Amino acid sequence: MPRFANSVANLRSSEIRDMMSLATAPDIISFAGGMPGNELFPLEKIDRIYQSLTEKEKQTALQYGPTTGLPSLIESLSDYLDKKGLPVKTNRLIITTGALQAIHILAKAFIDPGDPILVETPSFIGALSAFRAYGANLVTIPLNEDGMDIEQLKKRLDTTLPAPKFLYYTPNFHNPAGIIYSRKIKQEIVDLLKNKDIPIIEDDVYSDLYFYEEDLPGMQLIKAMDPEGIDVCYVGSFSKILGPGLRLGWMMVPEGIYRKCELIKQSIDACSPSLSQVIADKFIRRGDVYDYTASVRQEYKKRGLAMIEALEASLPAYVSFTKPHGGFYTWLQLPEGTDATAVLKKSIEKGVVFVTGQTFDPDAIQNNFMRVSFCNTDEETIRRGVPLIAEAIKEVCGH
Amino acid sequence: MPRFANSVANLRSSEIRDMMSLATAPDIISFAGGMPGNELFPLEKIDRIYQSLTEKEKQTALQYGPTTGLPSLIESLSDYLDKKGLPVKTNRLIITTGALQAIHILAKAFIDPGDPILVETPSFIGALSAFRAYGANLVTIPLNEDGMDIEQLKKRLDTTLPAPKFLYYTPNFHNPAGIIYSRKIKQEIVDLLKNKDIPIIEDDVYSDLYFYEEDLPGMQLIKAMDPEGIDVCYVGSFSKILGPGLRLGWMMVPEGIYRKCELIKQSIDACSPSLSQVIADKFIRRGDVYDYTASVRQEYKKRGLAMIEALEASLPAYVSFTKPHGGFYTWLQLPEGTDATAVLKKSIEKGVVFVTGQTFDPDAIQNNFMRVSFCNTDEETIRRGVPLIAEAIKEVCGH
Repeated sequence: MPRFANSVANLRSSEIRDMMSLATAPDIISFAGGMPGNELFPLEKIDRIYQSLTEKEKQTALQYGPTTGLPSLIESLSDYLDKKGLPVKTNRLIITTGALQAIHILAKAFIDPGDPILVETPSFIGALSAFRAYGANLVTIPLNEDGMDIEQLKKRLDTTLPAPKFLYYTPNFHNPAGIIYSRKIKQEIVDLLKNKDIPIIEDDVYSDLYFYEEDLPGMQLIKAMDPEGIDVCYVGSFSKILGPGLRLGWMMVPEGIYRKCELIKQSIDACSPSLSQVIADKFIRRGDVYDYTASVRQEYKKRGLAMIEALEASLPAYVSFTKPHGGFYTWLQLPEGTDATAVLKKSIEKGVVFVTGQTFDPDAIQNNFMRVSFCNTDEETIRRGVPLIAEAIKEVCGH
Repeated sequence: MPRFANSVANLRSSEIRDMMSLATAPDIISFAGGMPGNELFPLEKIDRIYQSLTEKEKQTALQYGPTTGLPSLIESLSDYLDKKGLPVKTNRLIITTGALQAIHILAKAFIDPGDPILVETPSFIGALSAFRAYGANLVTIPLNEDGMDIEQLKKRLDTTLPAPKFLYYTPNFHNPAGIIYSRKIKQEIVDLLKNKDIPIIEDDVYSDLYFYEEDLPGMQLIKAMDPEGIDVCYVGSFSKILGPGLRLGWMMVPEGIYRKCELIKQSIDACSPSLSQVIADKFIRRGDVYDYTASVRQEYKKRGLAMIEALEASLPAYVSFTKPHGGFYTWLQLPEGTDATAVLKKSIEKGVVFVTGQTFDPDAIQNNFMRVSFCNTDEETIRRGVPLIAEAIKEVCGH
């Protein structure tokens, strides 16, 4: 047996892989994955972009680029984020190989083994995996319907020693919980963390996929509030607004954090794929990103509403769930003490998969929740699959 | 100041970036970079590949793929490596975001802060940066013209406590030293490491760029020898046989190491770019890789020979250098005690850049060497630039 580093002992066996292999089995209805529907990708736009590339742009696409990203993409992305009200002029951008790499780099920048960090429960499995890879002590704060439980946050801040290295949170269309943070909760987080030397990692990869424009003002990012006395590391991605296969994300961070993260990225993959960057740059410059997000937003809204309707029609009364206003997920709460894995087993027999709550619990314990995605199945399939999940629940929990 | 992790204190300021920004200044002749020439990329082949993609393949290109790589690419790459005599059937492949990511993942898998590892001096700066990022204690073995100094390797193995976590080496067309390891030295490394639980990381990204077919038998990889009693982690890349902008490399490793590295990769970027993988897969399947490497091999040979000729014609007798048989680099040895940085300054005044030896010294001390690349400049530019370097040397060291 090779003598592996102690620091990687925390890495757990590959639940994501198992889940994905299930999710791609033929004939099974999958509400498990967090990927966009294949049929929604902007293939024609990409074709037009490819046709428009000059010889020089194709050479750039095949060559190494700067570690922090191609200057042209940095420019177009800055403009895109500026229009969203983000403080691009007083921060620096790093293009990363997916948003997960941005989170991984920040994890490496801040975490020594045993360091406490603050995370929501439930939380994004990819981020948890990056934090575990550096031996973080995951200090959890439960989620309510309008964001993290502020009383619990206060308590954690008072009792966690040494002070947590950062707070990681997902403001909009939370994965897996499906919620939007309220303005009030975000303001309270800012007030609590001010001048405490605890940066915020704000992971916002779903906010373009809103169902209702009237939600937009409340969805303002803490990064856009630009609070004094807190280092806010804002993380975003092209995965939901173009395609995850490009592996492109970004972080927007203050100068000091930028410099450290650049060095870390240099040691991880030297630079992100230039081919993907050239295409993403054109996708913004031609305005494709605006048309495309407008159209997928409509499609995900149809799917989300079909999911809500189907769940309301078939779930027993003792199951509650968040009605999503955007994003990819619904989050079902089963009666206390129910084992969602038993429901999953029954459900697979019926030809439907989802992800059990335990996967998203930083403590890997609480399992009376289910994440049911609507991103990768059409309305008809949603209407067919949801009643089968409801049946599985009833078989485990009673009618 | 943010409270960064202690573990990243080792990361040094960005010499590579500084070097690259110099290297891309207009009007300067650059022998600094390690990138292929822009004019050598197979743009027409890539166009034909893009035109040939089906709708389904384009969807795959935009979607998440498995963490270890697209099955189709794993298959075609296995076939490609099988033809090179590598033991694909008894090992596992992971597609990585460049060869550097493969090295980074292996570094993370094995290194806890303070762990000794064995590296050559000089050595590849990217690998050193990955090893430093995990706080490795770099134990150095000097290079001779036929590979590492075996007496020094023995001594290091006898005296390094605890035992080194692995040995990292570059068998063919070494970066920066330009040498090929002899069969004899590779066999002695194998004999010394057998059953010692010290894996070998074999970094072989240049071997397709040989000048002389008669060198091939001697260039056999330790991975291809498939020695018993040693875990050999073979690392390769599409950067030199297609284009670095795709950010695609691979590791071929035994099962136990594969499983650990898969988990680490999952936490770093989930998967490598699918778009790049779809193109690389076609590039192998259509046989393009064979035509293309055959043609660039001829071009780099012309450049390499022009470099050797120009150096022989203009260098003072007290400067020795390795005559490369392939790859991208020549490595010049100045008189003991010379500071190559002084030569670089003079050289920049004359409009030519290269990289000083210190950059590649794991101890960051020895500086009487210069890496002069011939990959990214045509023959005429080589003939123009080399005499200027020779002048700079003479101005610093005398005639």
